[in-house]
Amino acid sequence: MRTRPLKVALLGCGVVGSEVARIMTTHADDLTARIGAPVELVGVAVRQPSKVRAGIDPALITTDATALVKRGDVDVVIEVIGGIEPARALITAAFEHGASVVSANKALLAEDGAALHAAAEEHGRDLYYEAAVAGAIPLVRPLRESLAGDKVNRVLGIVNGTTNFILDKMDSSGAGYSEALDEATALGYAEADPTADVEGFDAAAKAAILAGIAFHTRVRIGDVHREGLTEVTAADIASAKRMGCTVKLLAICERAADGRSVTARVHPAMIPLTHPLASVREAYNAVFVEAEAAGQLMFYGPGAGGSPTASAVLGDLVAVCRNKLSGTTGPGESAYTRLPVSPMGEVVTRYHISLDVADKPGVLAQVATVFAEHDVSIDTVRQSGKDGEASLVVVTHRAPDAALSGTVEALRKLDTVRGVASIMRVEGE
Amino acid sequence: MRTRPLKVALLGCGVVGSEVARIMTTHADDLTARIGAPVELVGVAVRQPSKVRAGIDPALITTDATALVKRGDVDVVIEVIGGIEPARALITAAFEHGASVVSANKALLAEDGAALHAAAEEHGRDLYYEAAVAGAIPLVRPLRESLAGDKVNRVLGIVNGTTNFILDKMDSSGAGYSEALDEATALGYAEADPTADVEGFDAAAKAAILAGIAFHTRVRIGDVHREGLTEVTAADIASAKRMGCTVKLLAICERAADGRSVTARVHPAMIPLTHPLASVREAYNAVFVEAEAAGQLMFYGPGAGGSPTASAVLGDLVAVCRNKLSGTTGPGESAYTRLPVSPMGEVVTRYHISLDVADKPGVLAQVATVFAEHDVSIDTVRQSGKDGEASLVVVTHRAPDAALSGTVEALRKLDTVRGVASIMRVEGE
Repeated sequence: MRTRPLKVALLGCGVVGSEVARIMTTHADDLTARIGAPVELVGVAVRQPSKVRAGIDPALITTDATALVKRGDVDVVIEVIGGIEPARALITAAFEHGASVVSANKALLAEDGAALHAAAEEHGRDLYYEAAVAGAIPLVRPLRESLAGDKVNRVLGIVNGTTNFILDKMDSSGAGYSEALDEATALGYAEADPTADVEGFDAAAKAAILAGIAFHTRVRIGDVHREGLTEVTAADIASAKRMGCTVKLLAICERAADGRSVTARVHPAMIPLTHPLASVREAYNAVFVEAEAAGQLMFYGPGAGGSPTASAVLGDLVAVCRNKLSGTTGPGESAYTRLPVSPMGEVVTRYHISLDVADKPGVLAQVATVFAEHDVSIDTVRQSGKDGEASLVVVTHRAPDAALSGTVEALRKLDTVRGVASIMRVEGE
Repeated sequence: MRTRPLKVALLGCGVVGSEVARIMTTHADDLTARIGAPVELVGVAVRQPSKVRAGIDPALITTDATALVKRGDVDVVIEVIGGIEPARALITAAFEHGASVVSANKALLAEDGAALHAAAEEHGRDLYYEAAVAGAIPLVRPLRESLAGDKVNRVLGIVNGTTNFILDKMDSSGAGYSEALDEATALGYAEADPTADVEGFDAAAKAAILAGIAFHTRVRIGDVHREGLTEVTAADIASAKRMGCTVKLLAICERAADGRSVTARVHPAMIPLTHPLASVREAYNAVFVEAEAAGQLMFYGPGAGGSPTASAVLGDLVAVCRNKLSGTTGPGESAYTRLPVSPMGEVVTRYHISLDVADKPGVLAQVATVFAEHDVSIDTVRQSGKDGEASLVVVTHRAPDAALSGTVEALRKLDTVRGVASIMRVEGE
């Protein structure tokens, strides 16, 4: 056992950072035994130095993050600031000045992961980021390492707790979106500005990271088709129930059937109640992974929060410290397949379309003709109507997204179609 | 990229071994890219050399496993023979002659894991065994690495597919144990001699391995309290349903409340239908992990079968080969806590006891007195009776197993208690 400690610098001391610092102190003996050497916190970079931070030696606090990562004697930098800058510059400087990096920064990794991996490799450092995807749930390591001998074909998951909480409330209480969002905000599940969650940006960043690792290629957040849940209505949820489904905001990464491209997308979708993801409640996360040999695996747990995210950060810290001690680095970026990311139009899935139509004979025939003209095959149709108003709910077989878009565009032009009330994809069957 | 291949010897070419060999051939390019060097199968040790093995070069087949592991130029030995000997001798010889080992051998690891780890360490080799626990489900790596910065307090899982299939059938069809076992056998889920599965030996081996890794201590199969499911009746399942529960054969590894010891056990137990493990159907496996910072995590997937187990073996193969190339080894045994394993009597849990009693006044008072005398607090009692026969179902609060055993012994001595129909623990609340 080495007695000279490994030096750790912490960038950010909010909900996650303070938990990391706390556990490093309270569980120092365990960390020492598992790493094979003690770890010492040598600096904590913060924006507000005057804030009292229980359990952290005030002498460690600094506002000069750049100086901290450039000390030259730091073994590992833990970055839990989030956002693109200054995180990117600090991580790059850390690599240049001798440190490996553990990050929880999904936005940065989804935006610029390739450059960061290249910088890490250039300087012979590790870049680990289990905490960037689904909090404490081990996903990056299982995909990168446990499934390294397998071929992943699909990743399907609930990777944003806020939106799952909102949809779960809508499903269980019949509430509308605004009402459920208010409850999520009141309970601390949604931030004051919920945009990143409800518009799907957070989930899209995670989808990009997962798709890149799963398919050994490069996927950036801009490659991910993204739809939030702000337009999901109580009527959609009720309609899903009638089909034996529920609505979830899903991140879906797929290898195309011909194996020559991949897709990554985030959008609300109906999934059958019998699917294990359907029973993921409140703010929990869960990710389904389908691999050629392994079959279907699911990983479930708390997707956010200070302690769970700190658990993932510290697991990475142990691994990176062990690598440092043995003079090696762990698996870096694996992007050798260079598979392109196809646009959303090429995604093949099923659709649930709800139409407001005129209540007169021949409407169904007209609508069915439009579907047929676009090569979208209909699975079921449910017609209901009263007082001159009628609605048609069409569920299709699998078809390319572009064909469905073309169908909907044509439907809107029919005199007998008064409106397209909703379009939702059907997944997990 | 290195072009000289890493040499791999395969011991055993049954359901798992043949899948490993097949995937090594069909996915050779992927493995090369992920490892950083090609891997070459240099020998396959089998018992029946005459058997035709599609896709395997007959020149690689040998019956002399010992000579194969002693060649001296083998980088990695994959052991999928199972059982204690000759697997133990072969793995030890492999370490001595320069090879790291990937094994799927739960029985051997649960019996003698410490000695094997010591041999690996002595010779500077890796010993990886993700495939030994729950097939393709990543568990060993997440516990060893992802949660290396956390403190695991509890592992609760369904780790045997055969028994889960049987209990699922009993639950869904009302069938008795024998009938459900017959169906499992007919469908290939149970072996001709189902002892290892139905008596809980298989699950106990996995519990020992999981407990050792989770608590950083040594747990052998002999330390695991084991009860099979042969005595579970249709009446038990029906009784569980009335309580809003189902019956599962669980492997449970716990850290004692005072943190000074651990327990490991396998037995049938009632769990609430709302618990995620309750919805694990057919032959699937799932493991709940409760850690201090991470909270509750669940890992779900196929727990057995050729392809899923091969996926786990190949993930380990990639890791071990990468370690070889960088001249290092991965995490070895971590048993620094040296926590003792407490006997079953010290396990604290809840109980569901079904008694056949005389249908006369005062019986409940007598029974309740016995519970009180043994400090076992009663949660609920359900009394039912007709035609002079009566039954009492008692559900207790948490109590030590020894206290419950004492209670049951005393109950058997009461004149008014005609029999103890069943005793089952209640978990997952």
